[in-house]
Amino acid sequence: MGAETAIAVLTQGADLRTWSLIVTIFGDLARAPGAEIPGPVLSAITGRIGVKPEAMRVALHRLRKDNWLTSRRDGRVSFYRLTDTGRTESERATGRIYALDRAPPTRWHILVANPKPPRQRGEPGCAPVPEAYIPVAPGTWLGPGPAPQGCDKLFAFEGRPEQVPDWLRRDLLPAPLQAAYAAFSGKLATAATALGAGPVAPLERAVLRVLVVHGWRRLVLRHPDLPDRFFPDDWQGPAARSHVAHWLARLGEPSISEIATVAS
Amino acid sequence: MGAETAIAVLTQGADLRTWSLIVTIFGDLARAPGAEIPGPVLSAITGRIGVKPEAMRVALHRLRKDNWLTSRRDGRVSFYRLTDTGRTESERATGRIYALDRAPPTRWHILVANPKPPRQRGEPGCAPVPEAYIPVAPGTWLGPGPAPQGCDKLFAFEGRPEQVPDWLRRDLLPAPLQAAYAAFSGKLATAATALGAGPVAPLERAVLRVLVVHGWRRLVLRHPDLPDRFFPDDWQGPAARSHVAHWLARLGEPSISEIATVAS
Repeated sequence: MGAETAIAVLTQGADLRTWSLIVTIFGDLARAPGAEIPGPVLSAITGRIGVKPEAMRVALHRLRKDNWLTSRRDGRVSFYRLTDTGRTESERATGRIYALDRAPPTRWHILVANPKPPRQRGEPGCAPVPEAYIPVAPGTWLGPGPAPQGCDKLFAFEGRPEQVPDWLRRDLLPAPLQAAYAAFSGKLATAATALGAGPVAPLERAVLRVLVVHGWRRLVLRHPDLPDRFFPDDWQGPAARSHVAHWLARLGEPSISEIATVAS
Repeated sequence: MGAETAIAVLTQGADLRTWSLIVTIFGDLARAPGAEIPGPVLSAITGRIGVKPEAMRVALHRLRKDNWLTSRRDGRVSFYRLTDTGRTESERATGRIYALDRAPPTRWHILVANPKPPRQRGEPGCAPVPEAYIPVAPGTWLGPGPAPQGCDKLFAFEGRPEQVPDWLRRDLLPAPLQAAYAAFSGKLATAATALGAGPVAPLERAVLRVLVVHGWRRLVLRHPDLPDRFFPDDWQGPAARSHVAHWLARLGEPSISEIATVAS
């Protein structure tokens, strides 16, 4: 069966920590406010990926303790959903994961700290969203959009990058991450061939979506969100992005109730 | 006599190294190709500033040896003029010295060197005109105009400064230079009052021009050519610039032959 082989290809060698996989599942299938996944559907999806029931119990316990998931019982069935915190975090990542044809920002700014005292190395102290900043050199950061107000201890310069040298590209996307992109892109192509063009049942569609999104999420969230020209020329990111877009279009969005019908 | 007092005010405490003063004289009065100053005219001007004949001989010898000036003899009189090198260098400084109402550049760029190896601290290695660059921090430079081509080892970012912090303003214009601007501005005001509104003879006009331009040149060439907002708020540069503009308009441009007539 095509879906079986495709699932095997995508599972093989993938980093599938159970709690992280559950984060992907809820982010992909139950991100809407109030959306719930019944325990049996969750187990059916993760079971097809080879996750053991005991590992599921541990991961669900941890995610509830971390205030990411909450659950309710109805008779013998538990229903899980994202907490407000979990949904906010999922939505933050959504732009990076699903925006497959987004236009990159055209306006940027640079902040430079005073080199005289020990320079701030990690983050520009005054910026409202420090994680949006890319350290170009110690005390020099690149950030998207206009320069922030109130950073009057930093030199702020607004414009756009004209030349991104190899050392910065390699800083932004180290060799192991480049290799992971190439491997993932190759797997998506192999799995697509294995899947073929025939109909795919809702549970398999859900499982394949989760594997594709999970693999993609684990790559895109490991580097800053920059236009492709910031990255090495032979980076397989654009190829992988195009494969992901094709996969998501091919699989559609199975509803929880469709999956539940088949899984029960 | 007003001119006498004005000359005394401007001479008092000024840094008037003879060779540097001669550079100013040729830059101001004989920058045109082929323009010459007869020895007696040169001596008449420097004599009014208190330069001794022996100091003149030493300075002229040095400037000829440095290929800044050349001379020819006609009977008992020597005629001095700028060499091509001297004229090129004079013209380079002209923009800074005489452009009293110029619009500052609106387009700038930043270059950032790879922080991993020992960073280039002094100059961006690849830039065609290293002295045009302002070191913002070690390995980070600000330059006017568009980013240069061919600097593919540096991160290049094009745009314009939005926020210039105090530490950078003080770096660009240290306290002693700020104090020198304030002192010069004060002197120009005092000397203008002393000069009054009456007619001034060509030799005195030449001497006063030389003193004004010399004092101004010694200030503007000691810091980068940046818009005023890069400098400390209480900087007296704009006041001094406005005084210089008034002085040059008041004195006009006496020709060498006018001065010669009076000096001989």
